[in-house]
Amino acid sequence: MVRELPAAGAARGPHLAAFGRGLLLAALLAAAASFLPVADSSCPRDNSLVRDISQMQQSNYGREGFSHITVTGALAHGMKEVEVWLQTFGPGQRTPIHRHSCEEVFIVLKGKGTLLLGSSSLKYPGQPQEIPVFQNTTFSIPVNDPHQVWNSDEHEDLQVLVIISRPPIKIFIYDDWSVPHTAAKLKFPYFWDEDCLPAPKDEL
Amino acid sequence: MVRELPAAGAARGPHLAAFGRGLLLAALLAAAASFLPVADSSCPRDNSLVRDISQMQQSNYGREGFSHITVTGALAHGMKEVEVWLQTFGPGQRTPIHRHSCEEVFIVLKGKGTLLLGSSSLKYPGQPQEIPVFQNTTFSIPVNDPHQVWNSDEHEDLQVLVIISRPPIKIFIYDDWSVPHTAAKLKFPYFWDEDCLPAPKDEL
Repeated sequence: MVRELPAAGAARGPHLAAFGRGLLLAALLAAAASFLPVADSSCPRDNSLVRDISQMQQSNYGREGFSHITVTGALAHGMKEVEVWLQTFGPGQRTPIHRHSCEEVFIVLKGKGTLLLGSSSLKYPGQPQEIPVFQNTTFSIPVNDPHQVWNSDEHEDLQVLVIISRPPIKIFIYDDWSVPHTAAKLKFPYFWDEDCLPAPKDEL
Repeated sequence: MVRELPAAGAARGPHLAAFGRGLLLAALLAAAASFLPVADSSCPRDNSLVRDISQMQQSNYGREGFSHITVTGALAHGMKEVEVWLQTFGPGQRTPIHRHSCEEVFIVLKGKGTLLLGSSSLKYPGQPQEIPVFQNTTFSIPVNDPHQVWNSDEHEDLQVLVIISRPPIKIFIYDDWSVPHTAAKLKFPYFWDEDCLPAPKDEL
């Protein structure tokens, strides 16, 4: 399931070398993608106290132009209150329209895009606000508000660090902005948690 | 209270310009330090949905060779479950020896250092483990374990993104590793929360 990060990261080697100690997180990760081991589909449990992010399993979970790493999480690392993801969206890529009751903070490491934010006070999300986001900005999603993060740039990747509370995440997905909140579909465990969540026990 | 980030960040302008779209979070912030407005001591409340990290108030809170920004927090931004800090430690600088009951995740954006980790199972922290950390690694502090983050490098800054749960943070400080857990001193509100915490109401 592992894929190369999209091409925006591929040609950075020489720049990085010249940049010396100014190297930063996202570029390192992009550069590292070419020597990441191919991931198997098992849960990457790792209780090491210190972990190298550039060596972590990344996957696109079947979505073209997408890459996800669970940097620190509930199922793989035993976190109970916070979880951190590193995600890259190729040009034009989007999350599903979705909502969740946990807090969520984004930090834009690279690129630019658009946060689409619907309403939780109507019976359905409705026409979303379109809010520009760009490198070096942070934004939080109001709890339970339906939203979508979209790499609206035509050329560059959008790379974000994402922090959620109360992991693992429980996501309700909307097919479009007119779907009633009550008809949004729960996807749990979410794609990156599927391999790690213990199989449910039979109810006796 | 605002200070320039230590000198490691000061000479990066030309490199950054040449690096183009590969620019990354920490270097941008270092470069931005020279034109940050001088902060007043009031609470930087900001309910904007999207905020530019490079324009945020940073301070050393009276500690030489240290810089803190509350990227997203309880008191300034209304978060209830997670809070995010960006911190820079100059060569040789350390946090206090301290513990807290919240979860805490570090992501090392730049530099290298040492995590000193004491015991919570003895009556005092005792001789700490010394665990190397470096750029592009992540580590979590076991809940209630006394610890100290130390920029043990002699030349380079250590820059970390820090995520805590259940803000605002309640920190117990140890003068040294032999102080009993029961004698560690609560510092609440912590330095960067002092300006934002509402004055306690008189009890009637």
